[in-house]
Amino acid sequence: MNEKAVIVFSGGLDSTTCLALAKQQGFDCTALTFDYQQRHCAELNAAQAIAHRMGATDHRIVTLNMGQFGGSALTDQNIAVPDFEDTTQVPITYVPARNSVFLSIALALAEAIEAYDIFIGVSHIDYSGYPDCRPKFIEAFQNMANLATKAAIEGHPIKIHAPLIHLDKAQTIKFGVQAGVDYSMTVSCYRADNEGRACGSCDSCVYRKQGFAQAGVADPTRYQS
Amino acid sequence: MNEKAVIVFSGGLDSTTCLALAKQQGFDCTALTFDYQQRHCAELNAAQAIAHRMGATDHRIVTLNMGQFGGSALTDQNIAVPDFEDTTQVPITYVPARNSVFLSIALALAEAIEAYDIFIGVSHIDYSGYPDCRPKFIEAFQNMANLATKAAIEGHPIKIHAPLIHLDKAQTIKFGVQAGVDYSMTVSCYRADNEGRACGSCDSCVYRKQGFAQAGVADPTRYQS
Repeated sequence: MNEKAVIVFSGGLDSTTCLALAKQQGFDCTALTFDYQQRHCAELNAAQAIAHRMGATDHRIVTLNMGQFGGSALTDQNIAVPDFEDTTQVPITYVPARNSVFLSIALALAEAIEAYDIFIGVSHIDYSGYPDCRPKFIEAFQNMANLATKAAIEGHPIKIHAPLIHLDKAQTIKFGVQAGVDYSMTVSCYRADNEGRACGSCDSCVYRKQGFAQAGVADPTRYQS
Repeated sequence: MNEKAVIVFSGGLDSTTCLALAKQQGFDCTALTFDYQQRHCAELNAAQAIAHRMGATDHRIVTLNMGQFGGSALTDQNIAVPDFEDTTQVPITYVPARNSVFLSIALALAEAIEAYDIFIGVSHIDYSGYPDCRPKFIEAFQNMANLATKAAIEGHPIKIHAPLIHLDKAQTIKFGVQAGVDYSMTVSCYRADNEGRACGSCDSCVYRKQGFAQAGVADPTRYQS
């Protein structure tokens, strides 16, 4: 029997690549998707289709209303998602403590199903300066997880895998293409419409578009116009 | 204006003491209660009444179905909560990664409302050996939190306060009595009935009962019989 892994899985470009890499490494994968009142609910539909297509053993959707806290354009209907800006500031699409919350719930699921490997598709390179995409955050989370759980103190340490952390979007796309990912199914846009078609101009779209161009791979993204 | 704090708040003996201590320290307190499909839903009713009585500025209830993962007598209807056992093993009432999840969501709320202090009523002494009640877990969480958030990298480090961590139940009760806590309102029992009356024989009841006896304080708990 293969080792189990939990994949933090949005149905976007990065987490889909992550699922493909975990499968390639022989893990029995449980995809974990959050319904956190994000604007791009088209992600959820994409996530279900992709998890099934890519052979995840199980797919869990956890509902958690992070929008009730406010503070992000991604979850607050009163804040507009801006067009791409080339800045060193943390943008308004940052969701407070999002990766801490996602990884903690992934940790709870992992411990409950006896999985000791968690994959998350964060990248230090192309991520708009979100603090919770940095290698030292991932290390600190893993350290915390190994003090937090019964599994760890009973001899099953948790490993947090962030295989894309040092890759830019173009490198991620090349990896994914080799691993058989069909990127036409994935939705990354912060302003996707109900059919999952991308706006083409938010931060996420701009990084994705540049990635396909730099990778020399035809962009299969479905755009709104 | 007072500094804001988020209090992880179940309405039990420990978190109520924690709220009282945070108020005493002058914080403007937002209580955060989780509806996580725990058996003792009487806790939620108690939490609302106590937060109001003790002058919390705000009280948020976050719904998160941790029961869907299974693995704990506290959230899984198919596992019975046992009577007290004096053992060094982590008991079946342990909920996988619970304090990691609670603190992460508290961190998200704190960042969204610009609070930089989080209180949690864990104790290293009377807690049945749960790994996520140990001082080194709290330290590791704080370290992670300060790498995770925009607030921290912009000069507002997060402090995790665990004022009960080195106290036994009797010491906690003495502190709380001094701070004016009415313990007849608090519900700690893992098998409380719908009116919040305690079973008197689960781990949590046994620790609580011993605590009042050792503190020399009359036990105001309402028991089922």
